[in-house]
Amino acid sequence: KSKIHFSLFSVGSFLRNKKKKDTERIIHSIKVGISLVLISLLYLLEPLYVLVAENAIWAIMTVVVTFEFSAGATLGKGLNRGMGTVLGGGLGIIAAALAQKLGTVGNCIIIGASVFIFGTMATYFRLFPSVRKRYDYGVMIFILTFNLVVVSGVRTEHQKVWEIARDRLLTMVMGFVVCISVSLLVFPLWASDELHDSIVSRFQGLANSLQDCLEEYVKFAAEKENKAGASFGICKSLLDSKSKDELLANFAKWEPWHGKFGFFYPWEKYLKIGEVLRELAAIILALGGCLQDSTTAMALEPCEAIGSRIVWTMRQLGDSMKQMRKCEAESHISPKLKTAREELSLMISTSKIATIQNMDALAVTSFVFLLNRVVDKVDQ
Amino acid sequence: KSKIHFSLFSVGSFLRNKKKKDTERIIHSIKVGISLVLISLLYLLEPLYVLVAENAIWAIMTVVVTFEFSAGATLGKGLNRGMGTVLGGGLGIIAAALAQKLGTVGNCIIIGASVFIFGTMATYFRLFPSVRKRYDYGVMIFILTFNLVVVSGVRTEHQKVWEIARDRLLTMVMGFVVCISVSLLVFPLWASDELHDSIVSRFQGLANSLQDCLEEYVKFAAEKENKAGASFGICKSLLDSKSKDELLANFAKWEPWHGKFGFFYPWEKYLKIGEVLRELAAIILALGGCLQDSTTAMALEPCEAIGSRIVWTMRQLGDSMKQMRKCEAESHISPKLKTAREELSLMISTSKIATIQNMDALAVTSFVFLLNRVVDKVDQ
Repeated sequence: KSKIHFSLFSVGSFLRNKKKKDTERIIHSIKVGISLVLISLLYLLEPLYVLVAENAIWAIMTVVVTFEFSAGATLGKGLNRGMGTVLGGGLGIIAAALAQKLGTVGNCIIIGASVFIFGTMATYFRLFPSVRKRYDYGVMIFILTFNLVVVSGVRTEHQKVWEIARDRLLTMVMGFVVCISVSLLVFPLWASDELHDSIVSRFQGLANSLQDCLEEYVKFAAEKENKAGASFGICKSLLDSKSKDELLANFAKWEPWHGKFGFFYPWEKYLKIGEVLRELAAIILALGGCLQDSTTAMALEPCEAIGSRIVWTMRQLGDSMKQMRKCEAESHISPKLKTAREELSLMISTSKIATIQNMDALAVTSFVFLLNRVVDKVDQ
Repeated sequence: KSKIHFSLFSVGSFLRNKKKKDTERIIHSIKVGISLVLISLLYLLEPLYVLVAENAIWAIMTVVVTFEFSAGATLGKGLNRGMGTVLGGGLGIIAAALAQKLGTVGNCIIIGASVFIFGTMATYFRLFPSVRKRYDYGVMIFILTFNLVVVSGVRTEHQKVWEIARDRLLTMVMGFVVCISVSLLVFPLWASDELHDSIVSRFQGLANSLQDCLEEYVKFAAEKENKAGASFGICKSLLDSKSKDELLANFAKWEPWHGKFGFFYPWEKYLKIGEVLRELAAIILALGGCLQDSTTAMALEPCEAIGSRIVWTMRQLGDSMKQMRKCEAESHISPKLKTAREELSLMISTSKIATIQNMDALAVTSFVFLLNRVVDKVDQ
């Protein structure tokens, strides 16, 4: 009965999760719509249009290109765009001024050469993983701006190039301001919240699949018939979560102080916890595989006891992380895990060896690591 | 001695790999530089400039934005950009024409409403994973073009909007043609090659770490001292490879016929093989973990024999995949794995149970799956 109740619970939370995601999508879409209308006012209202004229397209472009799902991503992309534009524009103006001092032919050669050199160098630079992770977009905008400024320098006088660059930068800033205000002030969607929630829900997910696994084992031992394996979908999807985590942590770093997260919040800790959880997922998967294969079943009760203890610990840790307080149960957890370990090694040494125990021992080991890290984190 | 030789071999292949990657990066950077210079000629050469005038910025923008590392990615992004521009421009012109039939106030309202509605809908659409995967960029360009065309419709007559749209599209096509020619004709870097090579090298990598693992085990059993575990870096990095694989397969789908790959090459098969290899990596990781934990070591020889047989199979499969021929050794492999399986189950049933066997059984099971799939693939 408890299992049915349990599945219902997890289905419920899945649906709730899905609904929440959908609501967030709709909110985001409406926010983009609002920003687009706001920035279109530059064209639609006469006094504003007089101010910016044709340059308004740069404001629109900025809004479309930089408005991302989470506040952190928007901020990061906007700042990247700003940096890229200023740097590229500055260098472009210098190069154009240098080129204009020469005759027409020398001019063309200088421009061609500078376009080639800067384009090649910046592209090479962009391919390094560390740059690519945070500044990819900025470097791209740098190349773009540099090229536009340099080549348009051929066709216009020096003074005018300067004016064009200034006006475009100004309209870009307008677009950015609209983006950021809408993104941060109207129902903000934080990447940090998403990262936090996804890590918390993983504790629950792993606990559930471990429990499923144990129940399967008990049933199998009792009925001596090979059932279809429990579903390890959660574990498998967890294994692929690394790149998503890194992306989110990256965005979260851009986000200013808000809600329960302060400045310089230790996002790297989240990545580490994610790493440990992934390892644990791999272990649970292997455990499930062993279960399907194994033809013997023995040493049942101690296994079950240890397993359920681990499940309980997982839930506790998940809860304490959810509420962001130092794990109260910590003083209980450590000794409990210790006894579990001791029981386990006792069991192995008394040579009631079944595959499952050793796997559990691994889980416990990795768990103690995890625990230490969580304690570290919550301490901060 | 064979181990040292082996490590040297793997270090060598690592360096070669790194050097190859670096060369590819430099080639890509130079290609970008060349395309930029080519497209800058639109500004620099008088007759060309007369043709396109200020619209040349769209050509430059297209080159900077769509030129990606692999040929497939460039092609995909360019086609996306084209579709987005045509659709967005078309709808924008229709909306602008409708709005111009009304008075000034009604005009503004219609434009604001259409900007909001299309912006919101397209953004929502963009958030679905299936759309995001292949058409994200196209939808973004759709929103951008639609907005630009609609709002500039307020300030210019109908005839002129049409002209502007046509000219911009033309210059964009010029940029795209330059991109694609340089990308495909000058030392093309194919995403399909990268995917193929990475999958092939994984067979080797997994075989190596399994071998390390076995050697560790043998040493441990012989010397009764606990050594620092073998390095499982390859396995761990393999676990995170899913998103990269999907990206590459996605790009590879855009790529035309070239080299050894035909049209409609079954890239999904590569993803499936990648999936199986990831599972195998998880198993080897868990096996390594067990090894570090285990306090007993027994049933040594059969284990070793089976393990080395698996290693051999891996190498065979990797080689046959590398040369893209139907696995010659297939007729040998199947019976060999079968005997390995039988030995294993015999060993288990004669109750010489150690953790490692059951793990190996799993590896073998998963291996037979893998084998079947590879045979499927090579058959095609």
